[in-house]
Amino acid sequence: MSAGCLNNCPNCKCSKSAIIIGAGLVGSLWAVYLSKAGYKVDVYERRPDMRLTKMSAGKSINLATSYRGWKALDEVGIGDEIRKIAIPMYGRTLHHQNGETKYQPYGNGDQAIYSVSRGEINAKLMSIAEENPFVHIQFNAECVHIDFQQDRAQFRDTLTGEITDTTADVIFATDGAFSAARYHGMQKLDRFNYSQQYIPDGYREILLPANEDGTHKLSLNTLHIWPRGRFMLIALPNFDGSYTCTLFMPFDDDKYCFNNLTSKEKVNEFFAEVFPDFYAMMPNIADLWEDHPLSSLAIIRCFPWTHRKLALMGDAAHATVPFFGQGMNAGFEDCSVMWSLMNQHMDNWPLIFKEYEKLRKPNGDAVQDLSLQNYIVMRDKVADPDFLLLQKIERRLNYLYPDSYFPLYSMVSFTNIEYATAFKKGNEQEGMLKQIIEENSITEATPEEIIDTILHTFIQKNTAL
Amino acid sequence: MSAGCLNNCPNCKCSKSAIIIGAGLVGSLWAVYLSKAGYKVDVYERRPDMRLTKMSAGKSINLATSYRGWKALDEVGIGDEIRKIAIPMYGRTLHHQNGETKYQPYGNGDQAIYSVSRGEINAKLMSIAEENPFVHIQFNAECVHIDFQQDRAQFRDTLTGEITDTTADVIFATDGAFSAARYHGMQKLDRFNYSQQYIPDGYREILLPANEDGTHKLSLNTLHIWPRGRFMLIALPNFDGSYTCTLFMPFDDDKYCFNNLTSKEKVNEFFAEVFPDFYAMMPNIADLWEDHPLSSLAIIRCFPWTHRKLALMGDAAHATVPFFGQGMNAGFEDCSVMWSLMNQHMDNWPLIFKEYEKLRKPNGDAVQDLSLQNYIVMRDKVADPDFLLLQKIERRLNYLYPDSYFPLYSMVSFTNIEYATAFKKGNEQEGMLKQIIEENSITEATPEEIIDTILHTFIQKNTAL
Repeated sequence: MSAGCLNNCPNCKCSKSAIIIGAGLVGSLWAVYLSKAGYKVDVYERRPDMRLTKMSAGKSINLATSYRGWKALDEVGIGDEIRKIAIPMYGRTLHHQNGETKYQPYGNGDQAIYSVSRGEINAKLMSIAEENPFVHIQFNAECVHIDFQQDRAQFRDTLTGEITDTTADVIFATDGAFSAARYHGMQKLDRFNYSQQYIPDGYREILLPANEDGTHKLSLNTLHIWPRGRFMLIALPNFDGSYTCTLFMPFDDDKYCFNNLTSKEKVNEFFAEVFPDFYAMMPNIADLWEDHPLSSLAIIRCFPWTHRKLALMGDAAHATVPFFGQGMNAGFEDCSVMWSLMNQHMDNWPLIFKEYEKLRKPNGDAVQDLSLQNYIVMRDKVADPDFLLLQKIERRLNYLYPDSYFPLYSMVSFTNIEYATAFKKGNEQEGMLKQIIEENSITEATPEEIIDTILHTFIQKNTAL
Repeated sequence: MSAGCLNNCPNCKCSKSAIIIGAGLVGSLWAVYLSKAGYKVDVYERRPDMRLTKMSAGKSINLATSYRGWKALDEVGIGDEIRKIAIPMYGRTLHHQNGETKYQPYGNGDQAIYSVSRGEINAKLMSIAEENPFVHIQFNAECVHIDFQQDRAQFRDTLTGEITDTTADVIFATDGAFSAARYHGMQKLDRFNYSQQYIPDGYREILLPANEDGTHKLSLNTLHIWPRGRFMLIALPNFDGSYTCTLFMPFDDDKYCFNNLTSKEKVNEFFAEVFPDFYAMMPNIADLWEDHPLSSLAIIRCFPWTHRKLALMGDAAHATVPFFGQGMNAGFEDCSVMWSLMNQHMDNWPLIFKEYEKLRKPNGDAVQDLSLQNYIVMRDKVADPDFLLLQKIERRLNYLYPDSYFPLYSMVSFTNIEYATAFKKGNEQEGMLKQIIEENSITEATPEEIIDTILHTFIQKNTAL
């Protein structure tokens, strides 16, 4: 990958420099972008190089790359590299307590979201970034101080204790939900709005291994959900035949909660009762229960996202709960947006930053609202007959008017309509569909041609759709 | 003041110990309480001893002590000491732009809130606390670390840099809105909910000096307000004839905002136009404009308030904006509540803490909601004819049924009805009064006897009031 700067200098030797704090998904991808623009990029990462060690026992949910993610990856020409490690999921397969399963497509035709392992995609992005000689990732480098007076960042080597004090033309904090750069920098500023709100639910990862012959125990190209009202289990496929599964459930104050699963007996009893088909595939679940930590889930909102030379991107700016599978996609979209502003404003960072936070903050808020809302959909509504009927009508409407009607899920996952617009429009559409169903007394038994007539009439009356 | 422990041991030598972080209003009062219960109390205060230095140019609004504050002070027998430095204010005097003034009583008869200078009451509380030989205040001691593993607190001497690492049976953080103990302790805990939200308004203090003969320039026993819709000026009396005045106004994005007052000319123009009577009393306002800093205002919410041996009290738990004059009162009430739980549960701190945060958190939230709501009342509604009529009817209802009807302002300022209850009930009452006025077409001109008949009828129909 060659470094060509925005100024199109021949044999660019522009001495533009950037610091990126955090070599996670967004930081690594953003390093690729910046190096394309001719920046010398120093990335500082608190953890050791994950590529040199055995992947740590994940407390990470598998990720689902969707349209926004691919757009950002393709924009810097690395989408195909990542596609090699991604498994398409064309819909969700629901597992009911009585053993029945039901498949719901996510979109039309070949529309899919793609299962990737967090570790694998992160490692790949780091390696791609480092192919450019102007990108250097310093591992074991913990951000311990941000000095806004001097626009400097300080890092402590976690192995030697040595302190590095450094600066650059511009500094990006991509160090996640509990961003040290935000904590030591932004959170000390006057008039910085900040909130971290935990939901009552936690999660625990479970690895469902492959069959002995390496094949998958569940159908491959689908996201499996065991919806149970107040809690749920999900499973995303891996290439090696295994599934990364995650149980989401309240910590306490509920019949089914993590704090009640305190012994192997209780874990066995719980799975045998509420996830019998899963339990049959993994009868040793209780023995492996402690393999992965119990983790918490928070929504983190803040503003402003930029100050002087520093900008927050990804989870550092808008960490969300994982229920719409949009955390990584939203972070990658931050890169797309920042990149487009860089091109528009030619490295005028004060202007770029101002526009970036103005454009992206409402969408950061909206992706959080969408994520919270989708938890209810996933754990509860997907098994509700009224919701299923509504979804059926919506899919039909989308099929009949593919260019003018997009369900909320499609707007979020298969377009780059702004999250804030999608959230608003999606909720309006839901109200409208409910009205159509009610006014026309549509049921599961209503013949398709009658539904089609109702939908055609509706669309003709509502050209503004 | 003698130390007698809760266990009533003769010649108590109980080795009970407590650490208090912050010798502000709540910390100093709480030291008095704890010493009464036989605790050896070590108070650590970041700032130097304010009693040894000239009072710093305040960025503190004068305080208004009301019922809850007095209750907490009287409970440990120090109310009368504080009354010596408090000036009763029986109502508010509104100053309109055309020079007219109007007086609105706060309550019935001698009900008043009391103006005290933050510096004076703080100094007094420290001195009272230190009268007990078991209380020691360490100044210039900044909390730099809370170790929940070992239940220890670390302080750095701001003069020598020396670190003290210490512990006690129980630790209280009373170090204000930007509590270092909360920042270094609670905010690093998993599942700690936290939010700091700044309002768009800031404030600047102005000292209106006494007349040359030492008399007050404004009527004494009242809180003066210059309500101007989106902003306001207030003045609270001091003993030396001066008034501590505060201008509350948006920072920016408004015709009248701090960011537009960037020169002496602009300050003069602004005061001459919108506060002509004030400007006449203080024509040199522009010269003194920079004497006090421009400060910001935030609501800080968090939960839990306790963890292991540490509890947050006062602003450290529930910092609010100052518009109901309840910040100090709410903090003092925390002391009352904690004290009553100590007596109930005999130093069983895990139990006391659990009940304390359960009881007080809804009231912390409510005092914040009340404060935000009262800003609108003070800056805008007090000059609105509909609101004035509603207030008049409400005062009459309270006069006719003094034991069964309390206006919101009275519930908050002249009782210790829980803030959460007052907030809920107050808003219900407002709706009810609006309905009475509308249904009976009451106007400013309606004779009192007709209003009385309407109110009597209403009360008879609504015995549940």
